Amino acid sequence: MTICSFQPPRRTLMGPGPSDVSDRVLQAMARPTVGHLDPSFISMMDETKQLLQYVFQTKNELTFAVSAPGSAGMECCFANLIEPGNTVIVCQNGVFGGRMKENVERCGGIAVMVQDDWGKAVDPSKLEDALKANPDACLVAFVHAETSTGAQSDAKTLVDLAHQHGCLTIVDSVTSLAGTPLKVDEWGIDAIYSGSQKCLSASPGLSPVSFNQHAADKIKRRTTKVQSWFLDLNLVMGYWGGEGKRAYHHTAPVNCLYGLHESLVIVQEEGLQNSWDRHQRNHLALRDGLEKMGINFIVAEKDRLPQLNAVTIPEGIDDAAVRSRLLNEYDLEIGAGLGSLAGKVWRIGLMGHASSQKNVDFCLNSLRAVL
Amino acid sequence: MTICSFQPPRRTLMGPGPSDVSDRVLQAMARPTVGHLDPSFISMMDETKQLLQYVFQTKNELTFAVSAPGSAGMECCFANLIEPGNTVIVCQNGVFGGRMKENVERCGGIAVMVQDDWGKAVDPSKLEDALKANPDACLVAFVHAETSTGAQSDAKTLVDLAHQHGCLTIVDSVTSLAGTPLKVDEWGIDAIYSGSQKCLSASPGLSPVSFNQHAADKIKRRTTKVQSWFLDLNLVMGYWGGEGKRAYHHTAPVNCLYGLHESLVIVQEEGLQNSWDRHQRNHLALRDGLEKMGINFIVAEKDRLPQLNAVTIPEGIDDAAVRSRLLNEYDLEIGAGLGSLAGKVWRIGLMGHASSQKNVDFCLNSLRAVL
Repeated sequence: MTICSFQPPRRTLMGPGPSDVSDRVLQAMARPTVGHLDPSFISMMDETKQLLQYVFQTKNELTFAVSAPGSAGMECCFANLIEPGNTVIVCQNGVFGGRMKENVERCGGIAVMVQDDWGKAVDPSKLEDALKANPDACLVAFVHAETSTGAQSDAKTLVDLAHQHGCLTIVDSVTSLAGTPLKVDEWGIDAIYSGSQKCLSASPGLSPVSFNQHAADKIKRRTTKVQSWFLDLNLVMGYWGGEGKRAYHHTAPVNCLYGLHESLVIVQEEGLQNSWDRHQRNHLALRDGLEKMGINFIVAEKDRLPQLNAVTIPEGIDDAAVRSRLLNEYDLEIGAGLGSLAGKVWRIGLMGHASSQKNVDFCLNSLRAVL
Repeated sequence: MTICSFQPPRRTLMGPGPSDVSDRVLQAMARPTVGHLDPSFISMMDETKQLLQYVFQTKNELTFAVSAPGSAGMECCFANLIEPGNTVIVCQNGVFGGRMKENVERCGGIAVMVQDDWGKAVDPSKLEDALKANPDACLVAFVHAETSTGAQSDAKTLVDLAHQHGCLTIVDSVTSLAGTPLKVDEWGIDAIYSGSQKCLSASPGLSPVSFNQHAADKIKRRTTKVQSWFLDLNLVMGYWGGEGKRAYHHTAPVNCLYGLHESLVIVQEEGLQNSWDRHQRNHLALRDGLEKMGINFIVAEKDRLPQLNAVTIPEGIDDAAVRSRLLNEYDLEIGAGLGSLAGKVWRIGLMGHASSQKNVDFCLNSLRAVL
């Protein structure tokens, strides 16, 4: 056995994530590793917190990046906010609502499911019915931007309903953060998680999260320990916390955090509104091109995510063969369908650094050539 | 608020980890991100598995890197192998045995503690007594190389004892892997976890793990779900598994894995035995220099880890001031004491890429100048 250094190909990443990582972010990751308690690193963590507050549009003190991918950020929210026996209403309109249910149950909670068709937004009236039927519910969880379908739900309305019935909210913003308007404080979201590898265009492996005071209070009032030591916010906050002193909890993924920091600096330079506008503009250009080719979206226009375009695979076309040719002949990755949509849709991402007119043209031309 | 790109200082990392990351590994991390299901990436994962099997000295199929730091690797072992009500004997001789206890209890297990003084190896006769007193125990957990004290325990003897009493074993090798002899198959270790940022000298954020067939069987026989969705091996193995087909579970930390792969290629080039020998040689050189300065080890010679040298802070010396001066004037990081050893010891790491004669000389000269 002699294994050599790995030289990856240079792809254009237009799937559901990871998205293309810019050279600036890649170079940031290659800077010298410092200790996780080094004063210079701690300043960088403080800046990262400020930048995350900006992209989440929040003043929440409890805002940081979980040292693991978005799935762990999801688990961090559920494991900290659920105590055994809690009833949690989960709105499902795609794969990730199902993963939420798994999380609720593994934390000892009772999941009440509100189902909507895949590709549709969550129906607020169904949530309202569930809230009325389950007066003991204490949490509502839903996905703002369903990565499996490209549908966007009306987070503000869903959060308002939950609050009217005395529930806190957990919101999945893995694919929405920085790609589509998201206003944590204005909408009153209590707990939220995202991922580094979608519209932030950092490398995968980190999960930005934020918790407001109501969520923090519920965590402090717990009578049972959080079942995960690694994700226990009472411990993690000793390291990420606001009071200057950083207690060792785990060894932070130093170089990954360099990359996240740089990606956030880039969002700040562009401006969040400009980033949202750019995602919308490129989405419209892609839509026009696809529709001219007779390729149609599975999500109604008003609910479409600009950063994730789920389209029906034209009849008679071999899904895997097309994606293979795009990858092998054009170094272009687009996404397959997930769950019940496998084989039926393609998911074309225009996320973060990858959301550009150049990529729209490249994708349309490549698809045209292959089909 | 305008936050600029972060430019870290170039330190020499001679604390308890992270250790210095070589330019080769840093450059590997900066290579273009590809998708986590890209065929090229999957080949790299296959190679990473082979290389991890080599450094762990195992043929275990279930060998991979958890997508999060060592603390999550620890939790992965405990959460998968413990079912509620299981009795687990935990040998504690430092900070990380205490963390094991936390893990056992949060998984619903009952922890029976075997205590040894900090700085000493685990005493096999105490473990034997505990095994006799707890015939219902099904697991024994201990730390091979205690990062908080620099003491090494006799893993083979402890594993043999556990097996004689029908227990499986979980071994913490965070600091030992690639720095000191460790033979998973020869010693019969059932489940083991490590970290990327110690003697492998990759960036922090990944936790190599390995499970033998006995451990895998216990996981398959579970009657309850693993409480962590993110760490559930039944799911993770659909992605890392051996049968060619990779099912999406979570988005792997792609660029971090590039770095781990490169660090493992470097170990393979040097050869594991040569790496162990180098760690020992540099440890002896450091020891000689420190003893000439009147600085003494807290661990008896036979139990010392070559890669982590815990020494008593000379009387009258201001711990924090010395470490600050080393950092600010020499860009040299050495480690503080942890837990009950805080303020009493320094921990000088000679791990992986940082274990060199040059670093030994630099550390001795800098310490001499500051003291």
